Amino acid sequence: MTRLLKVIAALSVLLLSLCGLCAGFSPDTRTFHRNPSVTRLSANTPLPYPVRIAVLGGGNFGLALASVCGRAGYSATLLVRDPDVAAYVNKENRHPRYMSDVRLGEKVRATADAKAALKDATYIIHAVPVQYSRSFLENVKEHIPIGTPVMSASKGIETTSLGFMADILEDCLGKDRSYAFLSGPSFAREIAEQRATAVVIASEDKQLADDLADIMSSPNFRVFTSSDVMGIEVGGSVKNVIAIAAGMCEGLGLGTNAMSGLVTRGCGEMRRLGLYLGAEPTTLAGLSGVGDTFGTCFGPLSRNRNFGIRLGKGETMEEILATTTEVAEGVDTAGALVDLIKSKSKGYRLDLKYPIIFGVRDILEGKLGAREGLEGLMEMPLRLESYEATH
Amino acid sequence: MTRLLKVIAALSVLLLSLCGLCAGFSPDTRTFHRNPSVTRLSANTPLPYPVRIAVLGGGNFGLALASVCGRAGYSATLLVRDPDVAAYVNKENRHPRYMSDVRLGEKVRATADAKAALKDATYIIHAVPVQYSRSFLENVKEHIPIGTPVMSASKGIETTSLGFMADILEDCLGKDRSYAFLSGPSFAREIAEQRATAVVIASEDKQLADDLADIMSSPNFRVFTSSDVMGIEVGGSVKNVIAIAAGMCEGLGLGTNAMSGLVTRGCGEMRRLGLYLGAEPTTLAGLSGVGDTFGTCFGPLSRNRNFGIRLGKGETMEEILATTTEVAEGVDTAGALVDLIKSKSKGYRLDLKYPIIFGVRDILEGKLGAREGLEGLMEMPLRLESYEATH
Repeated sequence: MTRLLKVIAALSVLLLSLCGLCAGFSPDTRTFHRNPSVTRLSANTPLPYPVRIAVLGGGNFGLALASVCGRAGYSATLLVRDPDVAAYVNKENRHPRYMSDVRLGEKVRATADAKAALKDATYIIHAVPVQYSRSFLENVKEHIPIGTPVMSASKGIETTSLGFMADILEDCLGKDRSYAFLSGPSFAREIAEQRATAVVIASEDKQLADDLADIMSSPNFRVFTSSDVMGIEVGGSVKNVIAIAAGMCEGLGLGTNAMSGLVTRGCGEMRRLGLYLGAEPTTLAGLSGVGDTFGTCFGPLSRNRNFGIRLGKGETMEEILATTTEVAEGVDTAGALVDLIKSKSKGYRLDLKYPIIFGVRDILEGKLGAREGLEGLMEMPLRLESYEATH
Repeated sequence: MTRLLKVIAALSVLLLSLCGLCAGFSPDTRTFHRNPSVTRLSANTPLPYPVRIAVLGGGNFGLALASVCGRAGYSATLLVRDPDVAAYVNKENRHPRYMSDVRLGEKVRATADAKAALKDATYIIHAVPVQYSRSFLENVKEHIPIGTPVMSASKGIETTSLGFMADILEDCLGKDRSYAFLSGPSFAREIAEQRATAVVIASEDKQLADDLADIMSSPNFRVFTSSDVMGIEVGGSVKNVIAIAAGMCEGLGLGTNAMSGLVTRGCGEMRRLGLYLGAEPTTLAGLSGVGDTFGTCFGPLSRNRNFGIRLGKGETMEEILATTTEVAEGVDTAGALVDLIKSKSKGYRLDLKYPIIFGVRDILEGKLGAREGLEGLMEMPLRLESYEATH
């Protein structure tokens, strides 16, 4: 009898939460993400419904976030393309190729069956590179439950639509669910190795951001929240382009002064574009803006920076692309940002307002050599510093 | 006859400019820094009066700035303590100890005679460490011509008075002259080696900032201008404390994610303090704030970061101080900043508003171990990210 009561209680909580999730985005149902009548004594108290997380994209970042959820006690299912990879993950508890020395934790499983991964997911984490996101989502969307919130960890701008991840997600999965966006200085390997990391999760649905923060937070993974989705998206896109410029600076041996100046002025362009598009200045100055730029430009591990270093040392785009399997998001993002700026701005000589973004694009398109392009950036007209930030 | 005319013309220009300089700070005489009736065709056109620059402080940064002025064609005189050092500089064109492999350029001379260095200076560059500035200036001030503008390149807060350089200069040299302040990511060795560097010069006297920018600018040394003296001072002070924290993070091997998060939150404290004291947000986001912090925290050469690395690796303050002759400004600045914040702020629990500044001070005073202190910083309560920046 006691057992039956427990089952009924569990089922009703599940039903309640599913109602809330399915009802989607309207304000009166948002609170169902987390039952407000339940007093939560501390962070990481289990949510009042069973949490199952599906992670789309079996790259480094997807693995890292799955292991974060798993460590916090929530079951996380990786959706991967190859059934053999899924079998390997389930047998060995690590990925055969990415960070293959890192154990993912017992709560992390994998499958190549989209329906199995998605059908009972309460949250979906999207970690597929931006340029592949639309086709990936079109393939799996029939299995994504109505109303299930989706958190994106991908950064950049789609070259075809000039949309950010928020636009792609809404195009593919509709407006009747909440979306969240994770960003910040967070190299996947360090997350997986449980080294201290601080990120920010932004959502227009404050309750969703709070719930995800509660789910993922631990002493080694600190999650701050924000409502400024545009700030997160602009920061995450522009920083990869700045990282290519910083890498070129390093490849050319220009020194710390030049690189710091360049990165700072790059953050100025990030700020200018962000403010123009409606982002908050504090977001651009925070973990997902300046903070992520710090890590990407000065950390040892960034693909975008490595790409820039090789360009700076004289390799051509073709030579670099022929010898790497990794996606340097900033390469596509540079061109997309230029197109986006041209389409959204009304000003003239936008190349003078965004010289680093335009300069990196020109170098990537072979219109300028790396040295010539960077020297051009250093020799720009001098003026009031604050002019840079506000005009 | 022609020669006589030339001499008379030169003398009258000199007289005119001296009048302007001597007349000091009132608005109607500011324009004498640069004669507005002279149309300047380009940057680096010589000023319409003979420029002689005196550089106080024969350390790395003083040498670097003297060589910048010398390369631009202006005579620069280093005031050094030791006549033998002066003789060596004048004979060998390099310093016997600091950056001794770098030639200073033929326009740079040295003397140990304060009167000789200062009596006909049109601009004075002050590059003496903050804690020694007051006593240094008291010793030489009798030789500093009335009204001669002074540009400070020193950063920090005096532990005894809790004053910034602007306060110390005004205390020692009076209000009847213009002051300017140079900052930005600018390691002395890279400047001296003519590697690309971008800095900002701030002054309430816009004409002075413009003139100094014209004097010092070259293709490899880019000078932006600003009127936000407080922004420059706060940025230059706080960044050295952040650099000690970043170094500890590195010495403890905490990883790039942790270090980027810590530095970003450090910049948040810089921003909070700056805004409280009246600085402009764009200055704190610019070369002298975030930019200088980039270089100091991630560049290979910073004394403050090296100090932090050694603390992080387990050395004590005493062990480090016993084996270094270099001044790590951030050590004194951390304590002074805490005292300044306590004296200027009305809030309570200021240690929670400025946890990195207070934490570094506590570690330096031996109240906390480096690991314990940094782990405490990573485990702070989670909340809205923008809360961090604005409250």
